[in-house]
Amino acid sequence: MTTAIEAGSASERELVLTRVIDAPREKVFRAWTDPDLLKQWFAPLPYTTPVAELDVRPGGANLIVMRGPDGNDMPNRGVYLEVLENERLVFTDAYIKAWEPSQKPFMTVILTFEDEGGKTRYTARVRHWTAADREAHEKMGFHEGWGRCADQLASLVAKL
Amino acid sequence: MTTAIEAGSASERELVLTRVIDAPREKVFRAWTDPDLLKQWFAPLPYTTPVAELDVRPGGANLIVMRGPDGNDMPNRGVYLEVLENERLVFTDAYIKAWEPSQKPFMTVILTFEDEGGKTRYTARVRHWTAADREAHEKMGFHEGWGRCADQLASLVAKL
Repeated sequence: MTTAIEAGSASERELVLTRVIDAPREKVFRAWTDPDLLKQWFAPLPYTTPVAELDVRPGGANLIVMRGPDGNDMPNRGVYLEVLENERLVFTDAYIKAWEPSQKPFMTVILTFEDEGGKTRYTARVRHWTAADREAHEKMGFHEGWGRCADQLASLVAKL
Repeated sequence: MTTAIEAGSASERELVLTRVIDAPREKVFRAWTDPDLLKQWFAPLPYTTPVAELDVRPGGANLIVMRGPDGNDMPNRGVYLEVLENERLVFTDAYIKAWEPSQKPFMTVILTFEDEGGKTRYTARVRHWTAADREAHEKMGFHEGWGRCADQLASLVAKL
């Protein structure tokens, strides 16, 4: 998907997390698209995810609320751009519904779920509109945060 | 589609052009989706449109080049978000292809084609991420420019 030509400027605005999860990709995809499952792993503990409304189709909106240990809620709204069952899921916070621009287009998340002999190569590419936003996201703890959530996701799907 | 609730802040970021075109909506839709037709009306004369590459499907990219009377080319890149044949076409310049963020997410264009007794109610809603961008677009001559192009579009489809 990513070509050498675009790698230059695009990679400056992208953060990537990838790992192999010991579960078939159907389960990993489900953990992202079934609200009851997503609530169990989405926020890095001790944060929780009390609300997940997921209209999983191109143009469908999502609302995911993370709750901090202090009780503060952080709502995240977005719209799905592409849905390929068990293979690929793309969404962005540039819209809060189809097609109402958000206050701040920050990122586009491209998730891929690839079969690797019954396990899943799970890759999250997070693309930003500016290099500054990418850097801010990294400093907010992208790698640690998404990494811990991926651990939680892996633990959950192992039990499914 | 637009509700009273969202009208407040959303309308501050939106520009709208609407008119009735004396042709069935299939033809008006075609004028937007057939490259050979689009080239004939898209730029307000004496500007021309030498290039139109239109991959009309959700996630498909478009490239439309306008050429000024001085010979300067202005390329416009975008991605289609929603395609409902003869009814609705949505695209944005927030991406240059699926799903590579553009340098500057400026607008989302929502075109609707409604049947009115064999004629077409043609409406273009152009939504911006900021009120400042909406204002800049208006000062660039949105109403006159899109209005003249709509005239050219109407003349073309009358001959189809």
